[in-house]
Amino acid sequence: MTSAAGSGAQAPIDFYFDFISGYGYLASLRIEAMAARHGRRVDWHCMLLGVAVMKVMGLKPLLETPLKGDYVRRDFARYRRRHALTLARELDDPVMDPRPAARAFCWVKRQHPGREAPFAHALFDRYWRLGRDLSNVDELAALAAPLGLDETALRDGVGGDESRNDLRQSVAASLERGVFGSPFVIVDGEPFWGSDRLEQLDEWLQRGGW
Amino acid sequence: MTSAAGSGAQAPIDFYFDFISGYGYLASLRIEAMAARHGRRVDWHCMLLGVAVMKVMGLKPLLETPLKGDYVRRDFARYRRRHALTLARELDDPVMDPRPAARAFCWVKRQHPGREAPFAHALFDRYWRLGRDLSNVDELAALAAPLGLDETALRDGVGGDESRNDLRQSVAASLERGVFGSPFVIVDGEPFWGSDRLEQLDEWLQRGGW
Repeated sequence: MTSAAGSGAQAPIDFYFDFISGYGYLASLRIEAMAARHGRRVDWHCMLLGVAVMKVMGLKPLLETPLKGDYVRRDFARYRRRHALTLARELDDPVMDPRPAARAFCWVKRQHPGREAPFAHALFDRYWRLGRDLSNVDELAALAAPLGLDETALRDGVGGDESRNDLRQSVAASLERGVFGSPFVIVDGEPFWGSDRLEQLDEWLQRGGW
Repeated sequence: MTSAAGSGAQAPIDFYFDFISGYGYLASLRIEAMAARHGRRVDWHCMLLGVAVMKVMGLKPLLETPLKGDYVRRDFARYRRRHALTLARELDDPVMDPRPAARAFCWVKRQHPGREAPFAHALFDRYWRLGRDLSNVDELAALAAPLGLDETALRDGVGGDESRNDLRQSVAASLERGVFGSPFVIVDGEPFWGSDRLEQLDEWLQRGGW
């Protein structure tokens, strides 16, 4: 496979995330620059950890898993220090219901294709850096105007059947593709799980796989 | 903290592993060169995934976890291809009882301090590259002569109370330090889990932490 830089002809990178995922947030800050270096664009997809991890895999939430929970707190703090990220939200803060934010994302993706990536960034930023609770629809609505979206339409969209169905289908499709974590990337059929696999993804894109 | 290269005065890197861990094997191939680059030595420690993961954390074995099992098979194969590793053992092959090998390691560490690292390499190599079952004491005994160890003494050591107690204490100590996976590294009190954190460990050693 030859280098794709600049060709723009290759399939996009599928980027799966849950807004409640701290590691998903960290990866969201890097994925587009990485994709662009290899002439790829990013296709953003919602998944839900509550479905994949708890229902399908039958695991406890990460922070409630003995030993691993403490490690994750430390690992996340280390990453934050390394990259000088100041976040209002701590891992142990109450976790929002991710569905309203995910539905809002689905609505933007369907109604305003091309704007879902900036919208996802705005949602991640508001939840993690500013520490806001996006299960409150007012918090979602506040993002509409800055992104040129109609606030009323967004509110209606979050509560409507279309976004509900889209989210359900997005989650089902993610599970069918074997997505079980956040972040999770699939490129040309090859899966990469976790923010700590992004360096390998970078090499994979550079070499055209191996 | 100043660079430690060549000083030899800094604390060793604590490297925790289980011989049945494929990722532990992969990390074992890299950890000493990485440590040496930063003027550190490696202190090798046995842990047991069966105790940490199944008993303490209450999780299923990795390969039996829905979705994640399939991912791990693929991820491990990708690493093998990338590094041109030819291994007789597949992840889905029957897993040996790791305790005889771990006891043999504990015995060598106590009776022949300084030789436990080459012995651990030999054990990992025999299990993963050659695909042998090290729960068979004959397989362990075959490693004695090439490493200058007395075969009969090694056989007696594996079956004796001392190595049994040493392994029990090693596992307990690993849990007290929060070790729950293989590979797991602790350097100057900072924990790093997984072969995919070795790049970060390398940077941590280079910078003297952050």
